[in-house]
Amino acid sequence: MNSREVRLERRPQGAPVREDFSIAQVAVPAPAAGEVQVRNLWMTMDPAMRGRMSDARSYVPPLELSRAMEGPAVGEVVASGDPAFAPGDLVWSRLGWREAFTAPADRVQKRARTLPPQAYLGFAGMTGLTAYVGLLHVAALKPGDVVFVSAASGGVGSVVCQIAKLKGHRVIGAAGGPRKSAFLTEVLKLDAAIDYKAEPSLTKALARAAPEGIDVYFDNVGGDHLQAALSIANPRARFALCGMISQYNATEPSAAPRNLTQAVTKELRLEGFIALSHLHHEAQFLADVTAWHAAGQMVQAETVYDGIDRALDAFDGLFNGEGLGKMLVRLGDAAA
Amino acid sequence: MNSREVRLERRPQGAPVREDFSIAQVAVPAPAAGEVQVRNLWMTMDPAMRGRMSDARSYVPPLELSRAMEGPAVGEVVASGDPAFAPGDLVWSRLGWREAFTAPADRVQKRARTLPPQAYLGFAGMTGLTAYVGLLHVAALKPGDVVFVSAASGGVGSVVCQIAKLKGHRVIGAAGGPRKSAFLTEVLKLDAAIDYKAEPSLTKALARAAPEGIDVYFDNVGGDHLQAALSIANPRARFALCGMISQYNATEPSAAPRNLTQAVTKELRLEGFIALSHLHHEAQFLADVTAWHAAGQMVQAETVYDGIDRALDAFDGLFNGEGLGKMLVRLGDAAA
Repeated sequence: MNSREVRLERRPQGAPVREDFSIAQVAVPAPAAGEVQVRNLWMTMDPAMRGRMSDARSYVPPLELSRAMEGPAVGEVVASGDPAFAPGDLVWSRLGWREAFTAPADRVQKRARTLPPQAYLGFAGMTGLTAYVGLLHVAALKPGDVVFVSAASGGVGSVVCQIAKLKGHRVIGAAGGPRKSAFLTEVLKLDAAIDYKAEPSLTKALARAAPEGIDVYFDNVGGDHLQAALSIANPRARFALCGMISQYNATEPSAAPRNLTQAVTKELRLEGFIALSHLHHEAQFLADVTAWHAAGQMVQAETVYDGIDRALDAFDGLFNGEGLGKMLVRLGDAAA
Repeated sequence: MNSREVRLERRPQGAPVREDFSIAQVAVPAPAAGEVQVRNLWMTMDPAMRGRMSDARSYVPPLELSRAMEGPAVGEVVASGDPAFAPGDLVWSRLGWREAFTAPADRVQKRARTLPPQAYLGFAGMTGLTAYVGLLHVAALKPGDVVFVSAASGGVGSVVCQIAKLKGHRVIGAAGGPRKSAFLTEVLKLDAAIDYKAEPSLTKALARAAPEGIDVYFDNVGGDHLQAALSIANPRARFALCGMISQYNATEPSAAPRNLTQAVTKELRLEGFIALSHLHHEAQFLADVTAWHAAGQMVQAETVYDGIDRALDAFDGLFNGEGLGKMLVRLGDAAA
């Protein structure tokens, strides 16, 4: 069995370009004892991968050069040398950016067929867990809270919005462009959507959308979105700082909120978090999102690219504003 | 009895100037039933007063124009129309910026003679309570934490430093100029002092002073100090945001930390607070600081100005970097 894989060849300066990567074809060996051979069905992109392409110190080690990129993927077991896995099993791994692989069985995790396979890369995966723990545990959502979400049509943001809505909250989402704004109000049923590209002042737009102020801000963006949230926050509002995508490709530090004194006078709490520190909530999370999906309260916001040749287009979609929801690359169809 | 008082005549633009104020002489009436007549001994200045001189919305209402400034003071009862008070009682009020006053008895609070009178304007007053709740409750100091304090020789900062030291922590303080740095290491016995005026990079200076990183940052300054703390913070460090004196006199929003993404990747918690929300800790606080003072573990950092004519010099001392510790104005000597 052969597989194509995307390799990181040099560390991007600013926005990644095609020349930073290569696509290589490799042979995938039959599994030895204790190994599984997997054909990936879907792989996905996270903004955090941009950090791993650099060699800066972070909470996960940088990616190695001239090796296949790593990222979340779901696939099917083709052949197994481990008694815990059988051909046809659906498995999740971090061994994406390749069409197929053979690896020790402890590098993959079995997933139920209850949900569509790609859900485990979105609302039922680390993306969903990030939304879930950030909103419910870090920001400690409580009854009556008005919730503001930036990058609200994105992978994490769209799940935050849906959880807050199904729990009965007033939810305001910000996203770029009319297509995303329409998605927020028409598909996710938010109370208000802000198209930040069409607003000369994000703070004024948020003040109009939230005349009663906001109590929770789920920050995926930083910069001007964080500044607007600080201005409109009610006393003792809680901010879950999940990511600051406005900063990831910056070659020098970019604009910062100039109104942090609001955090003092309004006694705000701003707390950064990473989902990996909250894995103890994973079982409850998976039970909750599975139930919400069954009840029709949770959909996957996604943009699908076909074939591994489109992997970098999908990655670009995270940053260029074109992608809506999770960026997914379809690598194959589930076995008939 | 006559009294001189400092009045706010117009709202300052940027740093307050003499023309924003007047000094008026008024007659102080004898107390009616339910009133007390008080001669102030000491009054003090807080950076937060700068906010009340403006008419911006905050957690306390703005000061009225052509009325006496308000601020913490301690004085002695001269005559009393209320059975709960007798001549000679030491009382605390917010009716400072005047030499004497007559007011309803519920506007003053009795204080013990256990501590020097001006201590109730410093380490045993709202200043001390701010330090105490910010360090112990908001930042939730725990054993082994390395503590960084900005404006460390100031009224609040000097108490934060002393509490952290007496609890056995490694403490690094930042202040401006060699005189304040020497005070931090020689009088307050800090482990390291950073003279930010002498350092081209506050971040590099903090990295040298805290090679093991910092776990708690008590922020009185904002701006570049907050940026340095974000860079040097250890994972899950807690920041108590107490005030951002670098911003108070700014007529337009000033530089903000450009590295807030550190709060995400290191899971930092930044929490603003005001002491008024923590009055339920006041009794324990007063018992603790009284005991620490008796044990020689708590001194008052102070700069004393004599006479109400010096009130604005004392206020300037908060912002021009000349004042060390609490800015105090001595208005009279305790009755013999």
